[in-house]
Amino acid sequence: MRLSTYFLPTLKETPSDAKVPSHQLMLRAGMIRQLTSGVYNWLPLGLRVLKKIENIVREEMDAAGAQEVFLPMVQPAELWQETGRWDKMEEGLMLKLKDRHDHNACLGPTHEEVITDIFRKNIKSYRQLPLNLYQIQTKFRDEFRPRFGLMRGREFMMKDAYSFDIDKEKSMDAYEIMRQAYHKIFTRMGLDYRQVAADSGDIGGDKSHEFQVLAETGEDDLIFDKDGDYAVNVEKHDPEKCDVPEDRLEQKKGIEVGHIFYLGTTYSSPMKALVQSDKGEEVTVHMGCYGIGVSRIAAAAIEQCHDENGIIWPTPLAPYQIGLINLRTGNDACDSACEKLYADLQAQGFEVLYDDREEPAGAKFANMDLIGLPWQCIVGPKGLDAGKIEWKNRATGERLELPLGQTPEALSCPKQKAA
Amino acid sequence: MRLSTYFLPTLKETPSDAKVPSHQLMLRAGMIRQLTSGVYNWLPLGLRVLKKIENIVREEMDAAGAQEVFLPMVQPAELWQETGRWDKMEEGLMLKLKDRHDHNACLGPTHEEVITDIFRKNIKSYRQLPLNLYQIQTKFRDEFRPRFGLMRGREFMMKDAYSFDIDKEKSMDAYEIMRQAYHKIFTRMGLDYRQVAADSGDIGGDKSHEFQVLAETGEDDLIFDKDGDYAVNVEKHDPEKCDVPEDRLEQKKGIEVGHIFYLGTTYSSPMKALVQSDKGEEVTVHMGCYGIGVSRIAAAAIEQCHDENGIIWPTPLAPYQIGLINLRTGNDACDSACEKLYADLQAQGFEVLYDDREEPAGAKFANMDLIGLPWQCIVGPKGLDAGKIEWKNRATGERLELPLGQTPEALSCPKQKAA
Repeated sequence: MRLSTYFLPTLKETPSDAKVPSHQLMLRAGMIRQLTSGVYNWLPLGLRVLKKIENIVREEMDAAGAQEVFLPMVQPAELWQETGRWDKMEEGLMLKLKDRHDHNACLGPTHEEVITDIFRKNIKSYRQLPLNLYQIQTKFRDEFRPRFGLMRGREFMMKDAYSFDIDKEKSMDAYEIMRQAYHKIFTRMGLDYRQVAADSGDIGGDKSHEFQVLAETGEDDLIFDKDGDYAVNVEKHDPEKCDVPEDRLEQKKGIEVGHIFYLGTTYSSPMKALVQSDKGEEVTVHMGCYGIGVSRIAAAAIEQCHDENGIIWPTPLAPYQIGLINLRTGNDACDSACEKLYADLQAQGFEVLYDDREEPAGAKFANMDLIGLPWQCIVGPKGLDAGKIEWKNRATGERLELPLGQTPEALSCPKQKAA
Repeated sequence: MRLSTYFLPTLKETPSDAKVPSHQLMLRAGMIRQLTSGVYNWLPLGLRVLKKIENIVREEMDAAGAQEVFLPMVQPAELWQETGRWDKMEEGLMLKLKDRHDHNACLGPTHEEVITDIFRKNIKSYRQLPLNLYQIQTKFRDEFRPRFGLMRGREFMMKDAYSFDIDKEKSMDAYEIMRQAYHKIFTRMGLDYRQVAADSGDIGGDKSHEFQVLAETGEDDLIFDKDGDYAVNVEKHDPEKCDVPEDRLEQKKGIEVGHIFYLGTTYSSPMKALVQSDKGEEVTVHMGCYGIGVSRIAAAAIEQCHDENGIIWPTPLAPYQIGLINLRTGNDACDSACEKLYADLQAQGFEVLYDDREEPAGAKFANMDLIGLPWQCIVGPKGLDAGKIEWKNRATGERLELPLGQTPEALSCPKQKAA
């Protein structure tokens, strides 16, 4: 993409109403714009990041045997009344509405009721299990005080998966498959995260883990063993029952980006989601549910990876891998070298954002640092005279002078990887 | 995908409440399930079709220079009050709601106001034009009488694009680029369609074309010149002003799947979307808007392409290109031949749905005809003895006996095409 025609409204100043780095930087980098409290427009650069996240999630969910569906945002009250959550959900969080025929409905804050309804109407036999259905879809939760941009918005993108199994043991197998898939997902994203034991809260069931991206601005407090597996949300930490030596325990802030639950029959029992067992008996299915905050990951990655100049994208989430900077747009040598690089790098499978605008070099550097692409490829007349171009690593600040046509060794090509 | 584990709840009987073929067949083929009036769950097979449609639309929009964004579903009343549409929109079609702080909002039936708001806050100069922003996103219109399944639902998937230009002439250029992109889109989908001149209706502006998929169940009446370009929605046909000989005129039913409008300054003027011209004057931008009913296309394709046995997908929209039928699951020779074919065909880039269930051959044939994949690859013990397998073309009924390892010439490979 060429910056001269790209809709990328970056800002030099930090908007005064944005309090945390991710909110400030997503606004400044032209990734999002607020529409109303807790509700954001995704602009082209931001949407590319969102899709990178979605694709990693989708690939690992598919690889784990889950099947993708797409469920509605508007849900009828009747289903929620069956489980008792129509009146029980945290006061106000569910946005209720009435349609033109005066039917009660809500904007889906989650989809346990809808998916259980699909299950009970279409699955009759143990032979059709195990089943895990997921979707990547817009949710709405009417937070009393939306804040921190995408960290606690009202309308947001979520991956939610639901497993169905014949008994608790099989359901635990499904849980374990998802737990491992989550590790693959967050590892692939290049994020520093922890899996922590957690409370199930209001959702039901008795087993639950959170996946937390470590960041100073996190809203959760985590305690974990620096040298072992013990890791819990502070609310679950009982010093008397914890046998890890105290000097090995570390406390850090985390941002919850994933949460998995064993639900048992919390939903399947009141909604009568039954299947026939191999003995011909009617059995209530055991469920699990598995959430990932897709849009929150974009914010969490920035909270973890930024400096005073802007965002530093982990390569797997970067909207483009390379920012190509033409130091002298209008200079024939620079223009033609850049055009060739732009074409060649894309032909090699790289995603390239080309700053071909007539702007001072300083503005181009600042802009590219702000949006945080992993590598900058800097083309100026002096270097070209010597047959060289400069590559800058955004994360380390390292600069390399390489002959034209050569790319840094550390710059891996997505197409070559895939092949 | 293996049918033994696929969530594909097909139905033998036609649901009594479904009146048109697309609604009946999408339910029977396990593509969708109703959640509530006019609101549908997309199951795995249906979602694959939806994504095929989305991808074609996205590729052609990108190729035409449009840039993808993603806008919220919940929109504040204030923006709609600026254009006067808060009270003016067809009574009841806009689903209004109040959040917990008693703010008025609605579920977006369309996004002219939101996109114009983004434009005026971020674009200041003619140098940043032309600009065309689009999204593929869920819309909600509270139809008084939702009917015909996806043909007139309440919650549906739409591609909406909005162009911004410095004057009417440039806006007409943008309109023409979109008009041509729409032809590429519907041609690529393999649908028999017509572009017809249309009324602008309530949306404003004075130039508009519809794209209509021809089908007997269409809700629109079209009149067009069999041998020429003249084509209009019946409401626009004036026999006294039409100079096409009457015997060349044909009247057919159509399903509207695309609609493009020149909007002029209908929205930019009340919302003060101004840019500085090259002469330094403040100028109101000219807009166009361009819709495609993404989910409706899935239904329209079925209305156009089906027979008494089920759906007949045009290859570009088919959820899989090949249905592999094992006539004798459990028979070693059949199983191992099928496993090899399943692996080989996928390695060649084909999308394959493998019926590996222990079901009678007749049930497998009927099921595969119902879901309408372009080619069936039928593996039985007799054929294998002769080193042959049978291929059936779903559209023509043509059957070929081919040596193992050979595919029909008419079966084109998506991966080879892309390379």
